[in-house]
Amino acid sequence: MGSEENTSQSSSYNKSLPSTHLEKQGIKLHKWLLKKLMAKTGLPPFCIRLWDGTQVSAPDPEYTVQINSKSAFYKLMFDPELYFGETYVSGELVIEGDIIKLLEIIFINRSNTKASTSGFTRKLLGTLINPVRNNNLKGSKQNIYHHYDIGNDFYELWLDKEAMQYTCAYYPTENETLEQAQIAKLDHICRKLQLKPGDTVVEAGCGWGGLARHMAKHYGANVRSYNISHQQIVYAREKAKQQAVDHLVEYIEDDYRTINGEYDVFVSVGMLEHVGISHFATLGEVIQRSLKKNGRGLIHSIGRNQPGKMNSWIQKRIFPGAETPSLSQISSIFENQLSVLDIENIRLHYAKTLRHWLERFNDNEERIRTIFDEEFVRIWKLYLSGSIAAFSSGQLQLFQIIFTHNRRNDIPMTREYIYN
Amino acid sequence: MGSEENTSQSSSYNKSLPSTHLEKQGIKLHKWLLKKLMAKTGLPPFCIRLWDGTQVSAPDPEYTVQINSKSAFYKLMFDPELYFGETYVSGELVIEGDIIKLLEIIFINRSNTKASTSGFTRKLLGTLINPVRNNNLKGSKQNIYHHYDIGNDFYELWLDKEAMQYTCAYYPTENETLEQAQIAKLDHICRKLQLKPGDTVVEAGCGWGGLARHMAKHYGANVRSYNISHQQIVYAREKAKQQAVDHLVEYIEDDYRTINGEYDVFVSVGMLEHVGISHFATLGEVIQRSLKKNGRGLIHSIGRNQPGKMNSWIQKRIFPGAETPSLSQISSIFENQLSVLDIENIRLHYAKTLRHWLERFNDNEERIRTIFDEEFVRIWKLYLSGSIAAFSSGQLQLFQIIFTHNRRNDIPMTREYIYN
Repeated sequence: MGSEENTSQSSSYNKSLPSTHLEKQGIKLHKWLLKKLMAKTGLPPFCIRLWDGTQVSAPDPEYTVQINSKSAFYKLMFDPELYFGETYVSGELVIEGDIIKLLEIIFINRSNTKASTSGFTRKLLGTLINPVRNNNLKGSKQNIYHHYDIGNDFYELWLDKEAMQYTCAYYPTENETLEQAQIAKLDHICRKLQLKPGDTVVEAGCGWGGLARHMAKHYGANVRSYNISHQQIVYAREKAKQQAVDHLVEYIEDDYRTINGEYDVFVSVGMLEHVGISHFATLGEVIQRSLKKNGRGLIHSIGRNQPGKMNSWIQKRIFPGAETPSLSQISSIFENQLSVLDIENIRLHYAKTLRHWLERFNDNEERIRTIFDEEFVRIWKLYLSGSIAAFSSGQLQLFQIIFTHNRRNDIPMTREYIYN
Repeated sequence: MGSEENTSQSSSYNKSLPSTHLEKQGIKLHKWLLKKLMAKTGLPPFCIRLWDGTQVSAPDPEYTVQINSKSAFYKLMFDPELYFGETYVSGELVIEGDIIKLLEIIFINRSNTKASTSGFTRKLLGTLINPVRNNNLKGSKQNIYHHYDIGNDFYELWLDKEAMQYTCAYYPTENETLEQAQIAKLDHICRKLQLKPGDTVVEAGCGWGGLARHMAKHYGANVRSYNISHQQIVYAREKAKQQAVDHLVEYIEDDYRTINGEYDVFVSVGMLEHVGISHFATLGEVIQRSLKKNGRGLIHSIGRNQPGKMNSWIQKRIFPGAETPSLSQISSIFENQLSVLDIENIRLHYAKTLRHWLERFNDNEERIRTIFDEEFVRIWKLYLSGSIAAFSSGQLQLFQIIFTHNRRNDIPMTREYIYN
């Protein structure tokens, strides 16, 4: 991979442009800034080229990043995390080569590079420009509406046809279809929870209700599922009727903080990311009061290896209010009268799931463009591609955590029950 | 379980004692204090009786605790955690009934009761009277010497005969002997680490070296094991020669902080408890620099459900300098370029292991009394009994954590490899 010296040697710019003194000074500044940008991204095997032909390149660049306007360039210098996405979506930044691999390289290089001190001012400014909406009852409702209420038809185009799962699937042999892997995920969770007929289950955040219906249909459980997305709840109720499990499943359009009653099982798949770390203690209290003495619980959530901020572009465009916690932050949920029995990290399954989603999204690209617009398509393709890169490069993790009350002793001695 | 009213009703004291005004006042005070002590321990089904016959009792007491001197009583009131053990050992406190079950009740009740505000002063005083020795290089050496260098012959009397394991065993079917369960534990760890011939392993804290010899003998690994207990190292080297694996195993009498080189595997079983939470960041750095790019690591350690202090009697009498971390504290070790793949909590296996140890200890009680003395026997019996109660009541946990560098992708997709 090129050092700063190498990139300097191999750089060039278009000699045919008119070159006044000021222009020459401008080109010098831009080259200096480009080298800074390369250093910031860990000197990747890229060529970065500006609108006027000015470029800085690694010796054998695998990818070319073309920046088509001065304003895009300065925005990228100011906040590459936010404006990589913004300028990509606007077409001001064009990538030649596989964007997933390019992002993997950036993510890996970045995790090797220590955060710059200037980052603090930038992050502070970023917070002022794009404040993170608090996940109080009202804030959560608005945050969830932004992403999940944009149309069930849209999600049906590229999620699995069986259970409409918008969370990491589980591929026991790696050869499963998306449908098989999502069902395998539901069964993996039910086995981990030792679910049996008659069990009462409370679910915090249920998406389109697939897990609840699966638990009712295949395990004979009585499930009460909470969700604040109106469209998802409407869909979930309709499906439960169609599948004749509506006597076993109740979908409640309300916040997890309003959960009441005591249950044999507490389950939450893909909601923790939306809870917000400052609300983890509240979630811990909800779990504690809603689990029966011998109850079992499972949380399935995206996490990260170190405490840190969510990608600011994802926060702005995709998941306002979302935060991905580290394992120490997740563990704190249980550190009040609960006990963690088992944690499994299946991040590579999420990279695989996302590849399946992106493939189907691409197959339906024209249709999605007609329903929404070009910008929407570009945002979503970048979001899905970036997520693949984040999981495959180890930027993001997927944790499944099994827990109980801290004094429960009728727990399995080994984990063979999950695999037999 | 009796309320404070009930205990008051059923209390009585010896009417035949001479009753001057002062004595009556003393008895009143003692009864009031006894009720406080009962409340502090969560109103258990006990009768607590003083040297003069004064007693406070739950309606149907299952256990009687006899306190034989005024000084023992006041010490217990001042710091029950420390002086329960001290007065039990001195014979000033006598228990009628199963001490393990009694301790289980106290542990469970205590975890239900909020810590009293007066606890702060007491704990502060306790820290001044019994300071915790720091785990710097010199302090660790002294701490470890205190417990592990008291004689290999002693440990041979009650640990397993196969691998001299002084850590939690693993009982796949619950019917294993101690020997079988300790070997099963070693294999469970080797399977989790996907150990294969030729792998280089570094071990931080090796006890009498049983894991290292097992890895060499049964998996063909090259193991370098660090330990600061002189007696254990002498024993380990001798056994390696006897078992003809000394060409594959190197025992180094030095601190884990001096580990150098890069290895396929980092493993540490039962050492984390002695590291001290303030040294976790250093341990994380040691792991990071000593694991090859594709290396795998495992830590096996006692933990707790919430951050908190070690039992002060255990600190004083058994494990000076030891601290049992919570899962969030353990997770922090890895939150710098490492990634946690799997955590298993096998605390009930430790209760079972300890029962096996106590049984063998009891069988050898006379001999141990001859080698040491009566006080030593009482200390160790209380330590082993209390540890059984701590694990069976969920006061203590046993975590096995698998980890790698954060970008390693040739990790198993599922955990079936552990169970097949």
